[in-house]
Amino acid sequence: MPHAKPLWSGRFKEPLSAIALKFSSSIDFDKKLYQEDIAGSIAHVEMLAATKIISAEEGRRIRKALKEIAREIDGGHVDLSWEKEDIHLAVEQRLIQKIGPLGGKLHTGRSRNDQIALDERLYLRAAVHELQKLIAQLQRVLLYQAEKYFGTIMPGYTHMQRAQPVYLSHHFLAYISMLERDFERLSDCRKRANKLPLGAAALAGTSLPIDRQMVARKMGFDGIVENSMDAVSDRDYLIEFIAACSTIMVHLSRFAEELVLWTSQEFSFATIDDAYSTGSSIMPQKKNPDMAELVRGKTGRVFGSLTAILTLMKGLPLAYNRDMQEDKIPFFDAVTTTRECLFIFSHILVHTHVNRNRFEEELKHDFLIATDVAEYLVQKGVPFREAHSMTGKIVAYSVEHKKSLDQLTLKEFKHYSKYFDDDILSMLDPYTSVERKKSAGSTSPNEVKKQIVHWTRVLKNRKLQ
Amino acid sequence: MPHAKPLWSGRFKEPLSAIALKFSSSIDFDKKLYQEDIAGSIAHVEMLAATKIISAEEGRRIRKALKEIAREIDGGHVDLSWEKEDIHLAVEQRLIQKIGPLGGKLHTGRSRNDQIALDERLYLRAAVHELQKLIAQLQRVLLYQAEKYFGTIMPGYTHMQRAQPVYLSHHFLAYISMLERDFERLSDCRKRANKLPLGAAALAGTSLPIDRQMVARKMGFDGIVENSMDAVSDRDYLIEFIAACSTIMVHLSRFAEELVLWTSQEFSFATIDDAYSTGSSIMPQKKNPDMAELVRGKTGRVFGSLTAILTLMKGLPLAYNRDMQEDKIPFFDAVTTTRECLFIFSHILVHTHVNRNRFEEELKHDFLIATDVAEYLVQKGVPFREAHSMTGKIVAYSVEHKKSLDQLTLKEFKHYSKYFDDDILSMLDPYTSVERKKSAGSTSPNEVKKQIVHWTRVLKNRKLQ
Amino acid sequence: MPHAKPLWSGRFKEPLSAIALKFSSSIDFDKKLYQEDIAGSIAHVEMLAATKIISAEEGRRIRKALKEIAREIDGGHVDLSWEKEDIHLAVEQRLIQKIGPLGGKLHTGRSRNDQIALDERLYLRAAVHELQKLIAQLQRVLLYQAEKYFGTIMPGYTHMQRAQPVYLSHHFLAYISMLERDFERLSDCRKRANKLPLGAAALAGTSLPIDRQMVARKMGFDGIVENSMDAVSDRDYLIEFIAACSTIMVHLSRFAEELVLWTSQEFSFATIDDAYSTGSSIMPQKKNPDMAELVRGKTGRVFGSLTAILTLMKGLPLAYNRDMQEDKIPFFDAVTTTRECLFIFSHILVHTHVNRNRFEEELKHDFLIATDVAEYLVQKGVPFREAHSMTGKIVAYSVEHKKSLDQLTLKEFKHYSKYFDDDILSMLDPYTSVERKKSAGSTSPNEVKKQIVHWTRVLKNRKLQ
Amino acid sequence: MPHAKPLWSGRFKEPLSAIALKFSSSIDFDKKLYQEDIAGSIAHVEMLAATKIISAEEGRRIRKALKEIAREIDGGHVDLSWEKEDIHLAVEQRLIQKIGPLGGKLHTGRSRNDQIALDERLYLRAAVHELQKLIAQLQRVLLYQAEKYFGTIMPGYTHMQRAQPVYLSHHFLAYISMLERDFERLSDCRKRANKLPLGAAALAGTSLPIDRQMVARKMGFDGIVENSMDAVSDRDYLIEFIAACSTIMVHLSRFAEELVLWTSQEFSFATIDDAYSTGSSIMPQKKNPDMAELVRGKTGRVFGSLTAILTLMKGLPLAYNRDMQEDKIPFFDAVTTTRECLFIFSHILVHTHVNRNRFEEELKHDFLIATDVAEYLVQKGVPFREAHSMTGKIVAYSVEHKKSLDQLTLKEFKHYSKYFDDDILSMLDPYTSVERKKSAGSTSPNEVKKQIVHWTRVLKNRKLQ
Repeated sequence: MPHAKPLWSGRFKEPLSAIALKFSSSIDFDKKLYQEDIAGSIAHVEMLAATKIISAEEGRRIRKALKEIAREIDGGHVDLSWEKEDIHLAVEQRLIQKIGPLGGKLHTGRSRNDQIALDERLYLRAAVHELQKLIAQLQRVLLYQAEKYFGTIMPGYTHMQRAQPVYLSHHFLAYISMLERDFERLSDCRKRANKLPLGAAALAGTSLPIDRQMVARKMGFDGIVENSMDAVSDRDYLIEFIAACSTIMVHLSRFAEELVLWTSQEFSFATIDDAYSTGSSIMPQKKNPDMAELVRGKTGRVFGSLTAILTLMKGLPLAYNRDMQEDKIPFFDAVTTTRECLFIFSHILVHTHVNRNRFEEELKHDFLIATDVAEYLVQKGVPFREAHSMTGKIVAYSVEHKKSLDQLTLKEFKHYSKYFDDDILSMLDPYTSVERKKSAGSTSPNEVKKQIVHWTRVLKNRKLQ
Repeated sequence: MPHAKPLWSGRFKEPLSAIALKFSSSIDFDKKLYQEDIAGSIAHVEMLAATKIISAEEGRRIRKALKEIAREIDGGHVDLSWEKEDIHLAVEQRLIQKIGPLGGKLHTGRSRNDQIALDERLYLRAAVHELQKLIAQLQRVLLYQAEKYFGTIMPGYTHMQRAQPVYLSHHFLAYISMLERDFERLSDCRKRANKLPLGAAALAGTSLPIDRQMVARKMGFDGIVENSMDAVSDRDYLIEFIAACSTIMVHLSRFAEELVLWTSQEFSFATIDDAYSTGSSIMPQKKNPDMAELVRGKTGRVFGSLTAILTLMKGLPLAYNRDMQEDKIPFFDAVTTTRECLFIFSHILVHTHVNRNRFEEELKHDFLIATDVAEYLVQKGVPFREAHSMTGKIVAYSVEHKKSLDQLTLKEFKHYSKYFDDDILSMLDPYTSVERKKSAGSTSPNEVKKQIVHWTRVLKNRKLQ
Repeated sequence: MPHAKPLWSGRFKEPLSAIALKFSSSIDFDKKLYQEDIAGSIAHVEMLAATKIISAEEGRRIRKALKEIAREIDGGHVDLSWEKEDIHLAVEQRLIQKIGPLGGKLHTGRSRNDQIALDERLYLRAAVHELQKLIAQLQRVLLYQAEKYFGTIMPGYTHMQRAQPVYLSHHFLAYISMLERDFERLSDCRKRANKLPLGAAALAGTSLPIDRQMVARKMGFDGIVENSMDAVSDRDYLIEFIAACSTIMVHLSRFAEELVLWTSQEFSFATIDDAYSTGSSIMPQKKNPDMAELVRGKTGRVFGSLTAILTLMKGLPLAYNRDMQEDKIPFFDAVTTTRECLFIFSHILVHTHVNRNRFEEELKHDFLIATDVAEYLVQKGVPFREAHSMTGKIVAYSVEHKKSLDQLTLKEFKHYSKYFDDDILSMLDPYTSVERKKSAGSTSPNEVKKQIVHWTRVLKNRKLQ
Repeated sequence: MPHAKPLWSGRFKEPLSAIALKFSSSIDFDKKLYQEDIAGSIAHVEMLAATKIISAEEGRRIRKALKEIAREIDGGHVDLSWEKEDIHLAVEQRLIQKIGPLGGKLHTGRSRNDQIALDERLYLRAAVHELQKLIAQLQRVLLYQAEKYFGTIMPGYTHMQRAQPVYLSHHFLAYISMLERDFERLSDCRKRANKLPLGAAALAGTSLPIDRQMVARKMGFDGIVENSMDAVSDRDYLIEFIAACSTIMVHLSRFAEELVLWTSQEFSFATIDDAYSTGSSIMPQKKNPDMAELVRGKTGRVFGSLTAILTLMKGLPLAYNRDMQEDKIPFFDAVTTTRECLFIFSHILVHTHVNRNRFEEELKHDFLIATDVAEYLVQKGVPFREAHSMTGKIVAYSVEHKKSLDQLTLKEFKHYSKYFDDDILSMLDPYTSVERKKSAGSTSPNEVKKQIVHWTRVLKNRKLQ
């Protein structure tokens, strides 16, 4: 069977290599790393001079030119179009343009494989710093709200059903705790990522007498990546980072959901200032909690980035593979999205006002203190399961007689258990309920205050790396 | 417990509503929809005039202005900065700027909720068209290669181990079949998406006498979305579309992996032209299959987009929620990534050259025809399991005596089964093996030819919507 | 550097091959396919006999034994422990046990590679049938509720804020539309999957004169998979199926979220019968919507299965790879989870009772009809943007004077626009609002009735494959 | 419009509450937690007695009975069928059955919400222990292989193309480094998870004078979860754990891919013992690396579990929601899958034998030492970019004259640069290449030895929690 002139040939008219270059060019996104790239190059050059691989004078000239290039890029004066392929080549080319063949000494003893790993780790460090700052800020806003609304009660929910009265402050404080773990996860991620990969060269190291420890010290790394193949081929620092971002987004999405609920007409528990919601000129009741909705929506994007980076790395043989160029897309997007969401959330919360008395009246005549009645009996020696069952009967009786628990007489209580005494009557109140809580970490005023004191201290002394 | 001046207050200096607007502005990405948005507005206006909701003259003037705006945006002359919020408002504002209050009639009987759903469906239709065109093109390249290499054998692999000889053409044709299903999935997705949502207004429809069927006909829709709440709140067309893209990427990633293997020194089965690989000026043996690696890497991005859109939609109550603004990010990224990968793949394949005789010699003395020996016995009446076991013994004998099967004598064969005859000797050859295949869809020359004829016809008559 | 006795050697005492067998045995989950496996074998044997590859008598004996084995497995009388490796071998072994060497003829002209693809496609067909039946059932329940509550109005929400009055029936009908697309997606998936892979053998086809078309006809397939390598190596039918399940789950999760909201004390829009919620013996107000919550929670599991199968298939070279054994875990889990959720949802909905008058009073004095006022002006010729702005002012005036729109006088209206007339006063009512809707697919009584009639007809005539 | 008898009513015949119970019952999977559940109850009871909430004698009797129940469950003597709902109720019910109403005191001051969080954290602790043990074991096997094959060179790959010679030991050691980070991630996860949630009760804490710190100490926790709402509603410990498992699987999937490649006929770099591969009785060359393929395939399952748990938690309002019952499915599956894969991997590797001399001859005449030639010139003062370019020309010359670099004369070298000297001739060898490496972490013999010494010490002193 003979084969004819390819049917598709008419379509392939463009100079093909341009197509390939365009498809594979990464400068469109990796230009974001120019500061890291140049900082890394400067440290590298300093080391090359210190180890006499190049002369002191050469080192000085290259460093000077690199600093100029950084400023040129700042000012938008360097060509970073897709033809330049990637940020590393764009910088090196510009360097050679400026100082001639000497520029060709910059790439001594390294390769783009270890260079990009360095850039990413530097960027990650900065991202961790920024996210941690924003987490701390959000924690401070939460703490401020916890203090501000100290004393306000709300129904605590399980299954979105009212369960027991809790302090609103306690609710805010729960999120501080969650965010604290997010903070720690970022620290742990940084700790593992903060090792210098540079000097691994393409994958095998180099025969030149470079000093990796010196570069590590100069750039604030805690040490070097100890195996050159590992240094250029693994990206688990990115996976760990995006996983940490995902958990942050889980937490924000939960609070976002609550804000959407709280500001609905049905809940009417809180309002968000006009400046942070989109009103409608027609329907004044309609103040859309857009910012919260968007945070909730952006959660998917970070989860998607996690899926992307995991899929990318699955099953890649050592060492560097070009697939890994794509690691920056989910990484950068996770940084940006998480940063924006943390940032806006502080602002949303500051502009959120709780209707302090929204639930007060309702909770009084609710059955949220039923659990307290059961615990009252337990304290008198009744086994919990029995106390639970008796209380159930009391509640059923109340419902039948259209009374709330606080409207029952002692006699009515005693009908169900001899263990009831006068003191039962004084505790049928949501405020008493929270005040009676004793256990560590509970919603009692004391325990809530303890948390506030604790976090005030922690947040005051917070140090960022 | 008194609460102090908020600790964080120093940080909140910016005019806050600008922060919120910036966070929630979508024009940065939804400007991609300007053509769809304006086309939808034009059809809408024509309908408003036809139904006398506005006058014919009003209709004419608005349409004219909209067309001008489209050209202005083409030329980069309309302000689409983030302050404009979204593409719908940017266009409407420009319209009012141009023709005064009359421009305020454009938004009659519709809302941004149904408008964006329309824009997305139009964009999806165009994306399906484009992807299907690229799939067809890639299928043509595969067909060309299948014809070109007709007659070349290679080892078929299972578990990455050589299993049986197959025609290389058969391998190419397998991918045409896979891509055909991808093509169909896109058609099915289009079929479901190709319903007009416009006229659902915010969520409830409108009291104005609009004619949705007319707009549907004008814009080439197969009908209207029959429930106004469904029209503005569901996004399963996007999920279905990105899922279809994901399967395309699965297929491309598989072929990409194979190209990476085939071009390794160990396989040495194919080379990719320099124009489509990055060579190394140092190591001539090193011609990196970067394009294939990048396609493989980009697969994760499309999977990530699918995760993102699914997460986004999970658990959203009806009808429109602002979260859904984020649907465009994964949608657009899936379109772009899949398009680029399909496009480059045609080019890579055209520039891939198979070393026709790479495996010939090796396969002759391999044991890939062992299955044929077993089937020979089956044809003589031996139960398959016994035939299988006998052949195993023959192979073991050959290995022990350092012979390949084609070097055995009839006597040796007969030692293992009386059913062997002269004819066994003439079939111990990989070419004979493929030629002896009989079953429909097998790798026999006839069946492979049939596939080639079939696809030639199908691809010639391919019509795109 | 000498190497010592391995440090870990003490740990490797078990007979190693048992470890490997246990790790790789799949019968624990693929035994689920025994009916499909045996049905496939029976059809295969009938074909072997019809094509004289085995004798009629042999065919008869094997078929008879296979049917017995099916019954034995039904009764739990066949050893399917992990040592049996997989369901195919377990059945074949039992067959040989029963009828001796003749049993060894069963596996003629096929391999486990095409056999498992057949089993999966058969299982998928049954799963589609079952899911479609459950979708139809859920649609019927929704239709029943739409009819039952015809006339009940509720606030339609956007951004979880009350937007415009809609019929509750319209809300139910929106879900019927969504589920209809889910139904179609399953049909499309079935259409593509319903091709016979058997006869592809290991990957290359066979030299035996098998008749694949005959088997296809016997088993109700629409044809054969046309390329033997494609037949054994692709799994996009599973991806497509699980993607379709994911969209079903998106829809169910949305309704589940709404049920959770509707049954909260704050919404108090609906109650679920005790039999379908977990009450609390203590707190009578607390009737947890557990079933809805669980459906929402199980959504993640189906999305996870989609991630799993996509990851699994990414980058696998042709043809069969052992990785693919793992395809059954996400497949089966998606089937089970989606089936259970669809099933329970019909039951939940039947047991959900809406408080018909919950919103009536509230909506009267709400501003949900503001959009209608604007449209009133549009009908008098006022450009929409102006009408929108005037209405905004009227609303602001009302709020300031603590009136609702229905409490304004004509004079007050006329103050804002001369276009207002007597008739404005009669339309300031949520019921009138929905009645005035005109557009196709809107929430007007007529349009809602049309949908009900449409779905009644469709669901009555629904045929399943 | 009247509504008729529901169409679907015929289908709803089963006693409905059984359907709901079956759907929502979790004992099928949470019974896996019985040991943790009972251990937690015993510690709880000891605390109740110590704080005089119950008497010492009561405490003694309950504890004794609980221990008996643990043994009964061990022996399969307790009914754990789905009607029992969950493991907590099953145990409590059995307790009351055994010791009467006193059993009802067990649940004092706690709820199932904090109880399940406790069980999960205990299970997580055990899982971390087990996975860390298996990681350490796998590291030991890798170390053993690194020592065993010390001196063997192989081509190091980038883009799956041969790049530079490296020691096989170096390759093994790279994986030890990766796994070490996995080990640390698990430790960090444990550190955060190792806080006692018990005592948070339903969500608000309790009014009973329980001592949470005492329970924490008894059970080896590092403290208590400080906020009761956080304690019962967050699951980020599960997300973090499954993310850590995902990274382990990324690493294993990469090595699995390499084993598949190494054992292919084309690479022929290693063989896996028959006991750990499935041979074929027909094709002796075909020894399928099934175990490695399965590990690679199972990777998707763990990624899927991560998607599942993230989706599950997204947007859930505080505190406990029933959705969270589903958290155990992805958690348990991630534990099991990761454990099995780590376990089998040690066994696979032990049974993997490298063909030490496979590459020796080939590498000699390859161009893998080209980079060394460039570095030679750099050491003589030539800027790297020029050295790189000169070497490129030398290689081109060699290729043209069908020579390998080691076959060139000094004169030929000098033709390209005056800097070449006699010593160049002695370094054109892959062994010399690795020996000449100087940089820390490189593949030089010294650096590889250092790594071996380092890991020998670390693994010897490894302590597990």
